[in-house]
Amino acid sequence: MTHSLTPNLDRVAGPSDLRNMDDATLTAVAHEVRSEVISAVSQTGGHLGSSLGVVELAVAIHAVFNTPMDKLIWDVGHQCYPHKILTGRRDRMTTLRQKDGLSGFTKRSESEFDPFGAAHSSTSISAALGFAVGRDMGRPTGDAIAVIGDGSISAGMAYEAMNNAGHEGRRLFVILNDNEMSIAPPVGAMSSYLSRMYANEPLAKMKSLAEGFEAALPPPMREGAKRARQLVTGNLQGSGTLFEELGFEYIGPINGHDMGQLLPVLRAARARATGPVLIHCCTVKGKGYAPAENSADKYHGVSKFDVESGTQAKSKPNAPSYTKVFGDTLTDEAARDPNIVGITAAMPGGTGIDILAKRFPSRVFDVGIAEQHAVTFAAGMAASGLKPFCAIYSTFLQRGYDQVVHDVALQNLPVRFAIDRAGLVGADGATHAGAFDVGYLAALPNMTVMAAADEAELMHMVATAVAHDSGPIAFRYPRGSGNGVQMPERGEVLEIGKGRVIQEGSDVAFLSFGAHLAEVEAAARLLEKDGVSVTIADARFAKPLDIELILRLARTHDALITIEQGARGGFGAMVLHELADRGALDQGLKIRTVTLPDRFIDQASPDEMYADACMTRFDLYKMAVALTSSDGKVVPLTKGA
Amino acid sequence: MTHSLTPNLDRVAGPSDLRNMDDATLTAVAHEVRSEVISAVSQTGGHLGSSLGVVELAVAIHAVFNTPMDKLIWDVGHQCYPHKILTGRRDRMTTLRQKDGLSGFTKRSESEFDPFGAAHSSTSISAALGFAVGRDMGRPTGDAIAVIGDGSISAGMAYEAMNNAGHEGRRLFVILNDNEMSIAPPVGAMSSYLSRMYANEPLAKMKSLAEGFEAALPPPMREGAKRARQLVTGNLQGSGTLFEELGFEYIGPINGHDMGQLLPVLRAARARATGPVLIHCCTVKGKGYAPAENSADKYHGVSKFDVESGTQAKSKPNAPSYTKVFGDTLTDEAARDPNIVGITAAMPGGTGIDILAKRFPSRVFDVGIAEQHAVTFAAGMAASGLKPFCAIYSTFLQRGYDQVVHDVALQNLPVRFAIDRAGLVGADGATHAGAFDVGYLAALPNMTVMAAADEAELMHMVATAVAHDSGPIAFRYPRGSGNGVQMPERGEVLEIGKGRVIQEGSDVAFLSFGAHLAEVEAAARLLEKDGVSVTIADARFAKPLDIELILRLARTHDALITIEQGARGGFGAMVLHELADRGALDQGLKIRTVTLPDRFIDQASPDEMYADACMTRFDLYKMAVALTSSDGKVVPLTKGA
Repeated sequence: MTHSLTPNLDRVAGPSDLRNMDDATLTAVAHEVRSEVISAVSQTGGHLGSSLGVVELAVAIHAVFNTPMDKLIWDVGHQCYPHKILTGRRDRMTTLRQKDGLSGFTKRSESEFDPFGAAHSSTSISAALGFAVGRDMGRPTGDAIAVIGDGSISAGMAYEAMNNAGHEGRRLFVILNDNEMSIAPPVGAMSSYLSRMYANEPLAKMKSLAEGFEAALPPPMREGAKRARQLVTGNLQGSGTLFEELGFEYIGPINGHDMGQLLPVLRAARARATGPVLIHCCTVKGKGYAPAENSADKYHGVSKFDVESGTQAKSKPNAPSYTKVFGDTLTDEAARDPNIVGITAAMPGGTGIDILAKRFPSRVFDVGIAEQHAVTFAAGMAASGLKPFCAIYSTFLQRGYDQVVHDVALQNLPVRFAIDRAGLVGADGATHAGAFDVGYLAALPNMTVMAAADEAELMHMVATAVAHDSGPIAFRYPRGSGNGVQMPERGEVLEIGKGRVIQEGSDVAFLSFGAHLAEVEAAARLLEKDGVSVTIADARFAKPLDIELILRLARTHDALITIEQGARGGFGAMVLHELADRGALDQGLKIRTVTLPDRFIDQASPDEMYADACMTRFDLYKMAVALTSSDGKVVPLTKGA
Repeated sequence: MTHSLTPNLDRVAGPSDLRNMDDATLTAVAHEVRSEVISAVSQTGGHLGSSLGVVELAVAIHAVFNTPMDKLIWDVGHQCYPHKILTGRRDRMTTLRQKDGLSGFTKRSESEFDPFGAAHSSTSISAALGFAVGRDMGRPTGDAIAVIGDGSISAGMAYEAMNNAGHEGRRLFVILNDNEMSIAPPVGAMSSYLSRMYANEPLAKMKSLAEGFEAALPPPMREGAKRARQLVTGNLQGSGTLFEELGFEYIGPINGHDMGQLLPVLRAARARATGPVLIHCCTVKGKGYAPAENSADKYHGVSKFDVESGTQAKSKPNAPSYTKVFGDTLTDEAARDPNIVGITAAMPGGTGIDILAKRFPSRVFDVGIAEQHAVTFAAGMAASGLKPFCAIYSTFLQRGYDQVVHDVALQNLPVRFAIDRAGLVGADGATHAGAFDVGYLAALPNMTVMAAADEAELMHMVATAVAHDSGPIAFRYPRGSGNGVQMPERGEVLEIGKGRVIQEGSDVAFLSFGAHLAEVEAAARLLEKDGVSVTIADARFAKPLDIELILRLARTHDALITIEQGARGGFGAMVLHELADRGALDQGLKIRTVTLPDRFIDQASPDEMYADACMTRFDLYKMAVALTSSDGKVVPLTKGA
């Protein structure tokens, strides 16, 4: 008989089991959860650092609060692995972020312990307040607890929510998971002291105790305590925190890895809170796993790795990533044009803007998680004559949509939008899909919208955006590696609104927009084996459309198929509008639009996701065959249904 | 010879003339500007109260700063009438908000003194920071000054901008126009004292002087000073303001109507600032015009009025406004269903949510200018089992788009979106047009999208939204009065995804979505005079579409015309996608989509704007005639071009 390495965790079928354990056992459970997280992520890859930072928090919250009746909401949700282990999903942890496996984020459809899913940041306080109102209006729901990181809480949306929560004055728990600073012993010592105080004192007294303690510390220790406090207070003097002014009780900072602090503080807060409470926990990203703690990025997102050494599996890409091509090309252009600047909303690495920052640090602006500001800030720069490249993922640009409409498009200001992660993105799943940008941008007057078919095209589009000074312009490109195509020395400026013909045929015309071109070409190879003559065109522009090209394709082919890695209402819709309104459909045209289906697609590899979306070469082949083989028979699309 | 009533203002051809005037003359100019604003708005209607509140500010800023080289940005921009009078637009003030007249907001294309237009709130600091960066990078632009109200500065976007501006540390001026509180004499007295200090003391000393003065005041006066301070400080103790913590110098509060305070403070700030500075001015909305000052809404937005009495011209509507019908119907439904709650983002009156609030105050949530939070807060409520009606204008819902996608649609939560001001809105012009919502919502999986053809339909759609608990649902309706149709006792629950046929014909089918139906019916009358047999259908739903109806119309008519009060990529696009992908266009169909053109449409009456958009009954008539008279001849749409 072998002994389990996780004897305590083995007794936890769900959070209710935690509530019968003493504090020492809970501490042991936390240790075991940490091992499991490391082990699981070593096999799957994922958000390791942030999950290791909240192991104790997850155990403590579930032990103290009555989940799932109490609603626990993890902001962003990528730190939810310990939570998943504790809430009945332990046996599926090695399916994380894989097809048909567990989501890498919290997800309502996955568990009743995930009352509000996430993936985009800064939504948790708003949602928690919604639950608090529901409870107060008699819905069967208990307390609401939002756990939010120091980065997320600085976004405008979180500020709006705190402002409103303080005004509402309802009982509500916000746990600030502050991992920007390491917990030096002084802070830990003070927090230990405080947490013992908390257990015995009414909430109202806690703060003054904290202040007294802080003042009594010797100067170097006081400094650490002050820094922790400063983050939320905006006040080094220790009197009045931003949260308090907004109507919150403020407790902290406490050591978020010390169950001896966490448990009594949470219990006291739960027992006594009457209004909104903020509990400020200091944690360490990557806590308890040396390779993570010692890494610069704290293993924020990792691929599979060796637990012993921490060495991550490296896949050898055949081609540079689109992100790198963007960053390199922009930097190259910036070396020639001093007016080029780069803007990112807390994603310098993810967007490739860090490459520009390395060469021209004063010309890069990381505004934090603040997409609304990022877009209008860029608009102001453009109005002053600069050439701003606003690099934001498709899914996050949704956060700045009104600013794109009202500040950029309406004023026709030449902001350049570099839209990474267009289309389906793989392991991050539906929440990160870049599905809607073509539609929501092409609808806007003055906007120019491009999509790169490959990494060389991306170079051309960066160059085109540099040159296009008469209005806003956007170019989208997918996550991941390029196709390994020959790269030009330098991108060339494309003619606005002109597509290109890849090959001329006569039976079926594929009109592709963006990075699905390679799949379209593969479909053409299949069709050619059947004797079908295929035209392939790369539209390059969804706006303005290459009307001449589109009308010619319509006139000279039996069938025209548009393809895009995006939802309905985008490129295909614009083509249909033009053809309809110009009478080009009056006499009949077998036209089909291949788009993402009308449903959200769960995580898998991008290829699997596109297969799920019925967008493979075989799907395209079948569609084209049905259109050409017999005039009467039309195979309706089955996707979406 | 008559004496001018505005002898000083008559000498101001532009802001540079103000710079040669002494302070007493500038004060006189301000008085004269105030009279002109009152006189102009009495003839045009408009945002009177907010403009009267910034008369002295406008004069003082232009007198002290070097506009237009210095960039003055008015947040929201509806308070810009004094600014327009001072910047060469005095002779056109009586054309305000009218067709071919001056915009009711700042507008880049109107004047070089409007470096960044506005209409949506909270954008000014972001834009000003953009200009400051441009200046620091050598662009030919001077100082950047943002003037922002206390309501606007509380929005998340403004917080994001302040956060970033403080971090950047660049020279930048933010003038907080705080008109929530009246300026009681104590505050004024203190400010007078402070402003004299400011003129002689370096910035760093001003704050401590202010504090000393505040503490020395007798208690009742101290209270007023504290309240003023509290707004931005979050700190009654007077040490450290939120702005200071964010890296701003804080000056204030000062009396924004006292040129004796404004001018020296602005001069001192301009002379000495090295980083971002916040100048906190207290002003009175409607200042200097008794009817406005005494009115509850301070004449925020008025129709034409009699200057002597303040009596506003009242137009007698023939039918209740859509807004009122929504508010009344929702209140009626809420009386039956205790789970119904209403959410507004600082627009209780504009959205009709105030009607619900009057009856059920505890079931209405005004979250302030915070659309992002509003949507996710509603999602949280929906997840708890409530039935939230999130009432946001089409144009402002753009601010919460990511939340609609990520928190509502993706989680399939039954949030009800009541979308007022859909389509073209009249005097508020392009910035307030509700042009894009159908597209940006219909693209989302799980979403149901309706549009009301008239006010009775709106009642049905409210009832339908109450009943629809399986996912999110949105219904749009226009600004202004309904059509005067017979109103039902109570709205009936519509079948999801089913349209209705208004009249059956055989030649041309009009498929209308939303409030353009009356115009479509008028076009049908014209066509019938020519012997054309017209079918009229009201689609009711853009998503899900009534496929059966659409296919039948396509099969049984020579021509099918879709009509919507929205941009391309919306209803018509969804119809085209369905018809194309089902092969219904293979054999030919004269299909046309009537949408808003691909350009922004300036203010005028809604009828004039729709004429500008080529969407009148005559446009529809002509289009239909061209499609039916001769098979070969197709008249291409000329709109947009």
